[in-house]
Amino acid sequence: MPDRRIQCNFDRVDSEPSSHCWPVSVFAEKLTGHTGIGELMDDLGEALIQGRGKLKMMGGGTPAHLPEIEAIWRKQMGEMLRDRPDEFDRMLGDYDQPAGSPDFLRAVAGFLNREYGWGIGPENVAVTNGAQTALFYLLNRFAGKMAMGGRKKILLPIAPEYIGYADVGVGEEEIFEARKPKIELIDERTFKYRIDFENLNLSDQHGAIAISRPTNPSSNVLTDAELSRLRELASARGIPLIIDNAYGLPFPGVIFGEARPVWDENMILTISLSKLGLPGTRTGIVIARDEVIREISSMNAIIGLANNNVGQAMARPILESGEILHLAEQVIRPFYRARADHAIQMAKRHLPRSVPWRMHRSEGAFFLWFWLEGLPVSSRDLYSLLKEKNLIIVPGEYFFYGIQTKDWRHAAECIRVSFTQSEEVVEEGFQILGQTLQEIWKSSPRLISH
Amino acid sequence: MPDRRIQCNFDRVDSEPSSHCWPVSVFAEKLTGHTGIGELMDDLGEALIQGRGKLKMMGGGTPAHLPEIEAIWRKQMGEMLRDRPDEFDRMLGDYDQPAGSPDFLRAVAGFLNREYGWGIGPENVAVTNGAQTALFYLLNRFAGKMAMGGRKKILLPIAPEYIGYADVGVGEEEIFEARKPKIELIDERTFKYRIDFENLNLSDQHGAIAISRPTNPSSNVLTDAELSRLRELASARGIPLIIDNAYGLPFPGVIFGEARPVWDENMILTISLSKLGLPGTRTGIVIARDEVIREISSMNAIIGLANNNVGQAMARPILESGEILHLAEQVIRPFYRARADHAIQMAKRHLPRSVPWRMHRSEGAFFLWFWLEGLPVSSRDLYSLLKEKNLIIVPGEYFFYGIQTKDWRHAAECIRVSFTQSEEVVEEGFQILGQTLQEIWKSSPRLISH
Repeated sequence: MPDRRIQCNFDRVDSEPSSHCWPVSVFAEKLTGHTGIGELMDDLGEALIQGRGKLKMMGGGTPAHLPEIEAIWRKQMGEMLRDRPDEFDRMLGDYDQPAGSPDFLRAVAGFLNREYGWGIGPENVAVTNGAQTALFYLLNRFAGKMAMGGRKKILLPIAPEYIGYADVGVGEEEIFEARKPKIELIDERTFKYRIDFENLNLSDQHGAIAISRPTNPSSNVLTDAELSRLRELASARGIPLIIDNAYGLPFPGVIFGEARPVWDENMILTISLSKLGLPGTRTGIVIARDEVIREISSMNAIIGLANNNVGQAMARPILESGEILHLAEQVIRPFYRARADHAIQMAKRHLPRSVPWRMHRSEGAFFLWFWLEGLPVSSRDLYSLLKEKNLIIVPGEYFFYGIQTKDWRHAAECIRVSFTQSEEVVEEGFQILGQTLQEIWKSSPRLISH
Repeated sequence: MPDRRIQCNFDRVDSEPSSHCWPVSVFAEKLTGHTGIGELMDDLGEALIQGRGKLKMMGGGTPAHLPEIEAIWRKQMGEMLRDRPDEFDRMLGDYDQPAGSPDFLRAVAGFLNREYGWGIGPENVAVTNGAQTALFYLLNRFAGKMAMGGRKKILLPIAPEYIGYADVGVGEEEIFEARKPKIELIDERTFKYRIDFENLNLSDQHGAIAISRPTNPSSNVLTDAELSRLRELASARGIPLIIDNAYGLPFPGVIFGEARPVWDENMILTISLSKLGLPGTRTGIVIARDEVIREISSMNAIIGLANNNVGQAMARPILESGEILHLAEQVIRPFYRARADHAIQMAKRHLPRSVPWRMHRSEGAFFLWFWLEGLPVSSRDLYSLLKEKNLIIVPGEYFFYGIQTKDWRHAAECIRVSFTQSEEVVEEGFQILGQTLQEIWKSSPRLISH
């Protein structure tokens, strides 16, 4: 794997001083020195250049191209061009407001009020250039060096947690503190993570609690009961509970069991249009008390002046009509549920019986999460082996940050496998994975006893 | 003017502790506590809500809607929908790569090589969600707390400089050090800023030199000779020269005199599609040595995963065909030049002879910059007075940051007036400005002698 660090910026005494070595700030070192998400995106990019045909792309979270969804965006854009060309001109030609287009904010608030009775207004809604950016703002807003002095961290109730948070801290110190989950063994091949509330140790060191629901990478969906308990704990501490709904509720709705979207003013929700088929427009949505929305708006203004308008313009009509929920529940969820079921079948068919693999119960999102207990190599080495065989998955160890993993083998024994590619690709991918695991387990002495 | 600061986050002992007071990080305090650009955007937003008809919007830099430009975007989008719907689907439905779409990066490099012979490749080009975001990255990359220890600042060779930089620093300390320009009086009503090279005092405290060309707000265009000298000074110090071309070269090309776009590997250029009529797509472009491009790519990945694709898809064909230069030189520049000329006429017609107003020579961008020597109120007070009369301009004092202005009255005597609205609005605006100045000068005792 390439070292993405700009080598000359760091204390390499072996290289001669060069004009190529522009001194780098702490900010830039933090945002360029790490490897997790950048590596993932680089690999995705390189692989796409090399051609879709060759590599089985089972790493990223790119949504599938669903014809029923694509037809909607084509229709919206076509109608706008034909019937409301002035609106098209304004969409491209006007700066949006920093919090997002007032019409879009009203549409979001109206939709959430009609469906869930949250009683919010447009002042509780902000748009960002993708939900990743919203989390970048929020995690840095509630953790790091505090204005009143001292430092705070974000408590992640369950490691593994989304790789895309790992590197967002702009200061010198780690901003996350993650907790080991309880691992519930459901059957020989299935397990589920549960929050270990007894060892959560929420304290005044923490500025917020954050969790993705469903969790990227494990697909774990926090139960409504767990969510309620987290809400209470956070409120009692006077800190927010941040829920990242990128794959979740209310849309795209890729949650396979029972789950309810909730919000109160001690919670902050992030929602995305990406998994609804609009990743190219970068549209994230934040639901929060109005003071946080004003802060997001201010950050948008300073960091990027305004949001792009296109995703908002595409999605507003189906928010106003409520059609977006139909899409989530009748088109997107069934599609990914079928894909998940197929991927599980493929795993059971192609992963060797002799290998003690286990899969997190598939509760949502675009991934299966495998725990290869006793894996004789690291998940990072497994990633490299698989890449040589033209299969891209994501090594699990990147999802365990903010926690000591030295004595916790589990953290190096997991991989994330996405199932958004075609069924053929997914089947081939699991064949490669199965063969590779077989070879690894055969060739390596079993150093670890269970 | 509203105080955008979230009051409870700061040491107000008079308010009772409340769950509404979530402790705020230094990062968030920096990016939400200031007033400059946020206030401007808020005003712009509020005013747009209240209706275009009432307020004369002569504050912001929103590009005019040019039918010839709008026709191009309508055509591109229409043809894509009709002839290449798969490309439309990919534009909305695929994550871009963090540095930008490879096709777009090649198109930018190819265009710059053909027109200016820079000999660059796609590895020298990155896309960001607007040029503002590129500057946020770059200014924080070269200044603030340094990874190797110590602190550096960005040297701004001329105050006033773009209001949008003022608040971007994510750390606790000021990241700018600005210099007073020499003021060259051209005639009774016209002046021009020049870099005061004798007092530039570039030192190892500086991580980069940055300047916008044309400068927002003054419309000053750094001469080719000044640019060469800055390049040499920066190179000799081993730091980059950052040129913000948001209004400049090669496109949108809103520069009225002679000026040449230059790049070498010790320079970093930022270019924008906004003033070309695409502010709603948020598309910025960075030209730099490849190590900086990799850093930008990494920051994009961590802060926002990827860029939006729409602006890239719209602009790529006219970059490949070279039509973009025709648009810049034959459509956009003449339009704004005519608007500038009209605005100057209006100023001469409506600003009172008895008031010692001067205007920076109009060299580009969308603004006239007025120096009201001896203005008896601050430019901020003047802003408020004008707003009451339904005219929005931008008070000049926000553009003088990173410099001691206590003994420099000039910094509180300037205003920025944009001329992108219709000629009627501009004329009415100057009438209001003229009347107001007359009243101010009449009613206030002349405290200041000249």
